[in-house]
Amino acid sequence: MTPQQYEQVFDALDSFEIELPSWGFANTGTRFGKFIQAAAATTIEEKLSDASQVHAVTGCSPSVAVHVLWDFPNGLAQAPQVKQLARRYGVRIGSINPNVFQDQIYKFGSLGNPDAEIRQAALEHLIESVHISQATASRDISLWFADGSNYPGTQNIRKRRQWFLEGLSQLHQHLGENQRLLLEYKPFEPAFYHTDIADWGMALLLARHAGPQAKVLVDLGHHYPSQNIEQVVAWLLAEGMLGGFHFNDRRYADDDLTLGSIDPYQLFRIFHEICTWEWETGERADIAYMIDQSHNLKGKIEAMIQSVVRAQELYVKALLVDHEKLAKHQQSCELVDAEECLQRAFYRDVSPILEEWRRSRRLPLDPLQAFRQSGYLERVSRERAERNRDAVTSYA
Amino acid sequence: MTPQQYEQVFDALDSFEIELPSWGFANTGTRFGKFIQAAAATTIEEKLSDASQVHAVTGCSPSVAVHVLWDFPNGLAQAPQVKQLARRYGVRIGSINPNVFQDQIYKFGSLGNPDAEIRQAALEHLIESVHISQATASRDISLWFADGSNYPGTQNIRKRRQWFLEGLSQLHQHLGENQRLLLEYKPFEPAFYHTDIADWGMALLLARHAGPQAKVLVDLGHHYPSQNIEQVVAWLLAEGMLGGFHFNDRRYADDDLTLGSIDPYQLFRIFHEICTWEWETGERADIAYMIDQSHNLKGKIEAMIQSVVRAQELYVKALLVDHEKLAKHQQSCELVDAEECLQRAFYRDVSPILEEWRRSRRLPLDPLQAFRQSGYLERVSRERAERNRDAVTSYA
Amino acid sequence: MTPQQYEQVFDALDSFEIELPSWGFANTGTRFGKFIQAAAATTIEEKLSDASQVHAVTGCSPSVAVHVLWDFPNGLAQAPQVKQLARRYGVRIGSINPNVFQDQIYKFGSLGNPDAEIRQAALEHLIESVHISQATASRDISLWFADGSNYPGTQNIRKRRQWFLEGLSQLHQHLGENQRLLLEYKPFEPAFYHTDIADWGMALLLARHAGPQAKVLVDLGHHYPSQNIEQVVAWLLAEGMLGGFHFNDRRYADDDLTLGSIDPYQLFRIFHEICTWEWETGERADIAYMIDQSHNLKGKIEAMIQSVVRAQELYVKALLVDHEKLAKHQQSCELVDAEECLQRAFYRDVSPILEEWRRSRRLPLDPLQAFRQSGYLERVSRERAERNRDAVTSYA
Amino acid sequence: MTPQQYEQVFDALDSFEIELPSWGFANTGTRFGKFIQAAAATTIEEKLSDASQVHAVTGCSPSVAVHVLWDFPNGLAQAPQVKQLARRYGVRIGSINPNVFQDQIYKFGSLGNPDAEIRQAALEHLIESVHISQATASRDISLWFADGSNYPGTQNIRKRRQWFLEGLSQLHQHLGENQRLLLEYKPFEPAFYHTDIADWGMALLLARHAGPQAKVLVDLGHHYPSQNIEQVVAWLLAEGMLGGFHFNDRRYADDDLTLGSIDPYQLFRIFHEICTWEWETGERADIAYMIDQSHNLKGKIEAMIQSVVRAQELYVKALLVDHEKLAKHQQSCELVDAEECLQRAFYRDVSPILEEWRRSRRLPLDPLQAFRQSGYLERVSRERAERNRDAVTSYA
Repeated sequence: MTPQQYEQVFDALDSFEIELPSWGFANTGTRFGKFIQAAAATTIEEKLSDASQVHAVTGCSPSVAVHVLWDFPNGLAQAPQVKQLARRYGVRIGSINPNVFQDQIYKFGSLGNPDAEIRQAALEHLIESVHISQATASRDISLWFADGSNYPGTQNIRKRRQWFLEGLSQLHQHLGENQRLLLEYKPFEPAFYHTDIADWGMALLLARHAGPQAKVLVDLGHHYPSQNIEQVVAWLLAEGMLGGFHFNDRRYADDDLTLGSIDPYQLFRIFHEICTWEWETGERADIAYMIDQSHNLKGKIEAMIQSVVRAQELYVKALLVDHEKLAKHQQSCELVDAEECLQRAFYRDVSPILEEWRRSRRLPLDPLQAFRQSGYLERVSRERAERNRDAVTSYA
Repeated sequence: MTPQQYEQVFDALDSFEIELPSWGFANTGTRFGKFIQAAAATTIEEKLSDASQVHAVTGCSPSVAVHVLWDFPNGLAQAPQVKQLARRYGVRIGSINPNVFQDQIYKFGSLGNPDAEIRQAALEHLIESVHISQATASRDISLWFADGSNYPGTQNIRKRRQWFLEGLSQLHQHLGENQRLLLEYKPFEPAFYHTDIADWGMALLLARHAGPQAKVLVDLGHHYPSQNIEQVVAWLLAEGMLGGFHFNDRRYADDDLTLGSIDPYQLFRIFHEICTWEWETGERADIAYMIDQSHNLKGKIEAMIQSVVRAQELYVKALLVDHEKLAKHQQSCELVDAEECLQRAFYRDVSPILEEWRRSRRLPLDPLQAFRQSGYLERVSRERAERNRDAVTSYA
Repeated sequence: MTPQQYEQVFDALDSFEIELPSWGFANTGTRFGKFIQAAAATTIEEKLSDASQVHAVTGCSPSVAVHVLWDFPNGLAQAPQVKQLARRYGVRIGSINPNVFQDQIYKFGSLGNPDAEIRQAALEHLIESVHISQATASRDISLWFADGSNYPGTQNIRKRRQWFLEGLSQLHQHLGENQRLLLEYKPFEPAFYHTDIADWGMALLLARHAGPQAKVLVDLGHHYPSQNIEQVVAWLLAEGMLGGFHFNDRRYADDDLTLGSIDPYQLFRIFHEICTWEWETGERADIAYMIDQSHNLKGKIEAMIQSVVRAQELYVKALLVDHEKLAKHQQSCELVDAEECLQRAFYRDVSPILEEWRRSRRLPLDPLQAFRQSGYLERVSRERAERNRDAVTSYA
Repeated sequence: MTPQQYEQVFDALDSFEIELPSWGFANTGTRFGKFIQAAAATTIEEKLSDASQVHAVTGCSPSVAVHVLWDFPNGLAQAPQVKQLARRYGVRIGSINPNVFQDQIYKFGSLGNPDAEIRQAALEHLIESVHISQATASRDISLWFADGSNYPGTQNIRKRRQWFLEGLSQLHQHLGENQRLLLEYKPFEPAFYHTDIADWGMALLLARHAGPQAKVLVDLGHHYPSQNIEQVVAWLLAEGMLGGFHFNDRRYADDDLTLGSIDPYQLFRIFHEICTWEWETGERADIAYMIDQSHNLKGKIEAMIQSVVRAQELYVKALLVDHEKLAKHQQSCELVDAEECLQRAFYRDVSPILEEWRRSRRLPLDPLQAFRQSGYLERVSRERAERNRDAVTSYA
């Protein structure tokens, strides 16, 4: 590798940041129950503390996505305190995630609910979330809607679309100058027959209707079997509509496994589309990378460190694609050469350069090992064990 | 329709029974939360009472499947009392469903757990469930295992298979003479990378290894996209290994929607395979039909009535296939005629004959209407509302 | 049913037309070979003759979609003759289907090919197709592109998108005043890694870029497993972008089976979305209904008749939904009532009203039977048998 | 790496053989047509010649699978000549693939056909194939059946199963002492509604019924979306029923892309299950590795070399898993450690050891490069170009 390449990779790594979700440190599970971990975080302070551990050993996760309902139980009033807490732990508050799916009023939807009062309640919560984001100096408001229906005929799909158009347009007016709405799509769960924002096409159209600061958020688990996700990424880049990612992996549905655990080549290809766009345009893609995983069985902090490291590795592999060569092979339809060019980068051993970068940034060479040796896990396990024991709940 | 056909359909309807799941009357939801219903049942008495309402208006659901952990919190000792409760409400206890997935010890599996002590604990719970079934005079023990793993490499698939072989063989020895083990398969959720009993092939092989009284249970939601379920049913019938069904419907994953709500033609085809087998062999298929649905949004008792009625309708349609004609067309590969013969039965209006049957059995002609007019729902909503309000829980 | 409803259904049936594809009368197969039918059509005259038989007995398929490469081997010059042939057989030429996938030059794509000369050749064929459509007085040019790639990295997805933008915009300029481009999407096959127009979102964006007369064509077999197609239809209607359908059915991939043969409830729901849109807006949806099926095993003309009749039945069922009642239940979130309202229409026996309509329009009451009795099949089987015998080809 | 590990890997590579399919060198395509390659092979001699080129540069593909219909147009009589041809080209004849799907009589099936005479004809072809295998000294007869149906109700699934039971049992009696029947399964295509041998469970049951020398063949493209293939492999190993593989890769259906091109981690995991089984039992798994790909766009010989090399790489990665360590982590449910242990092997750079092995076996260090420099492709392109030009066929 040339010194120039080294420098380029180091620069890219310096600006490559992955946001951690506060809820990824809490006890989560499936509809069949939760397996409780002694070290799981409950309060926003614990979550920020855990996140700061990940940042300390990886140097690449300085911000934490927060959930309004769970992390700001007192709403906007709490924002200054949370912002300060984050600073104390050496991280900052990242994207703000409203919650319009958990309250009992949202049984039949939020912005898509046939009841105008409930739509208004949802809109107010969303607007408050924008205000919170301004108070925490967060740029992005990340919107996931659970809206939909479970049975054919029980809801009017087009009317609900219209209500979404209206609600999102109103919300957009509350954004600050540099802020963004990131709109997520998902084809199923918890609504099983239809989801109001089912795919990237619906998200893009709604975002365009809402206003210029609304972009699309791609959650890797929110697709159909066999769907080519990197093509969706390429199109969103081309349309200027890619706002961010929720990283995770899955086999069957929205499994929320750690990224790269099932299909690492796919995530590499996604990074490759982004790197190619940057190589062609000479611009830096304005994308929020976020983790959104459910660590039901793995230790939560360890799973985060593992994910961040894996993302760095796959990103560096994508950086090392020989774009010039590849473009030539693509133009000439030299399929085998083009493919080998891409795969060579995927299979490349990038640990040496990552170690080099970590050393030069005074980061531990083995982040997971460093965390394990810190004694943090043992300490918080002791401190939090009792409360977590009481957290056990039953499915039925 | 000839009088003979009428009689045949009436006979078939008289012996067509669908078992109701006690947990289908309780508050259930997704991993994102539960929407609480005022009328939801909590105690086994409430569940039996609700089930008896369904039976009263449909005349075809005289038994109730129970969940050991939720319905027998005191285990075997409680069995006589539950049995008596059922009798009081005019129903009987049906299949017994052990629960080896909810306790914290089952985090990494039950019969497939690498820890021999946990495997033993699971086996003991299963054996106790057999004893309960004997105390309640239930025939079937219905086994669903959540066992599996979330990440490649984290568990040894073949070792776990071996442990399942051993556990199920031991369990089989505890069965009474006429009892059956019904073994369920499921390709995903809550284990996301591999499920120990992932498909009908694995279930069949495990059941064969376990002993002659072990059969396979088909849950309609436990398949891959595009899988031809009626073919699996046909094979299980041919192999003498079909034990029963969990009826429900789905679009994407294991959505547990009410049966026939998404793809009614599929359920009709399943019934058709069974009716064809019976027509060819002159025997009555020994199959336990059970509902296993999650009524997250629909009223629970109403959803049950709707499901039972829909199942009756689709079953009668399948009864009315002209088997002789169809067999002839199949033998001659007259595709259009064969298909029209089948579809004619599917599209046939069976409400007149069902009404006739209901009238002759002194059942309400419109079961849903009859239930609504009974005032039952209003009464239990009042009685149970307060407790259900307290049942609200949060996802994180 | 009220006389008013009768009239409404009769009116709707009078204007409900399904276009037949000329290629649906020819020998087709899979990549593993073709099973040859003695009666299969080869020339455009034979295809028009066969199509006219379907129209004669159903009264609802007066137009025939044609494939430029197969039906106009001499291109534009042949258009007047084909138009006249159609008139002679009592049908008219419907949508024009260019073919930019079969020639050897299209190995790596047509409008998306990296080679500018090949893109130009494709564009010229497309423009000639527009000219043909003008010569045959056809309204729609129906565009399906096989473009894509088979291996990650071998083509530049965004560049190809750009070439499509440009080509389609140029093509749009050649349209006559009332003409339309109908743009089809398909997620796979014959390109296996990425298809340039993979889903409805890509088709919609390309169509919008191309111009106001470009709309989206929905082929029922061109989706992912589990995808909710009627929701896509509802969105396209709402966006004013639904141009037409290719009807067929499938289980696993793009199986091109006869419509309603696998999931009839799905097609009913699609019609329901259209009928609802018409009920709400008071307008008539401007949609081209076309069949696109591959009759590998069924008799080709019989399969067409069966399909047209099934489409009529499912359409009439959708017409009979009580929209007022349904809208009320939807607004009040009365799920069970809303669903029952929809399903009641689906299960309704519509043969009486269809018979009535056929009688009043002097059509045979049983179209399939009428065709069989006509002796047409026997005659053309004799006439075409020898040539078809020579059509046998091998896979490898 | 220790010298002992080196030796172990070298030994494993020495005995790792991948069989090449003769049809992979011929022009193939999709149902939409074939793109013709000048260098494509037509005769069995050309195919053997091409295969020998792959073996010459990789040293690991000494045998060629043949298709009876295409490679033995004169049947058994031709076997000695083909065997000798193979010897002349330095390869040997591998598995024999009967063809009971292409002849017009097989329109409605072969061994599953309702017509007893056609079943008999199929059986005779299969028996002749066994005789051919004996004449060519081939061990395996590889059976893929296209049997099935396209529409619900048109065939009797259980009757067809019974006919398969009978046919396969009869066929089994003709096997020589050390021969095997390898039975393939496939859930769809070219039959679209039901395939008679749809999944591994059906294949296993049929093979068990047929006799002890019948085993299951796993084609990587013959599964449902999301299915965990390595689990199927693990079960087949545990049941003693794994006979061989058809390697390829796919995104949506049975795309027949080059192996490892879409999901390389999956193929690695499959090798890992095999290596684990061998490590635990101390035995060598008796598995036939075969390529079955359709090189529609890539150069056929180059695609083969690429595939063989990729398979070697992924196999070596799987060999390098630290089984002892992994087993310990699995037993203790140390998920992150177990997963990292597996992924470390996957991401390992194995080019040095493969180069070392190639050097020591006097093989070219870069097989693809060596082939390109040989001039073979240019020569056969010239020789075969004209005939291939005439091979162009049309879809309709």
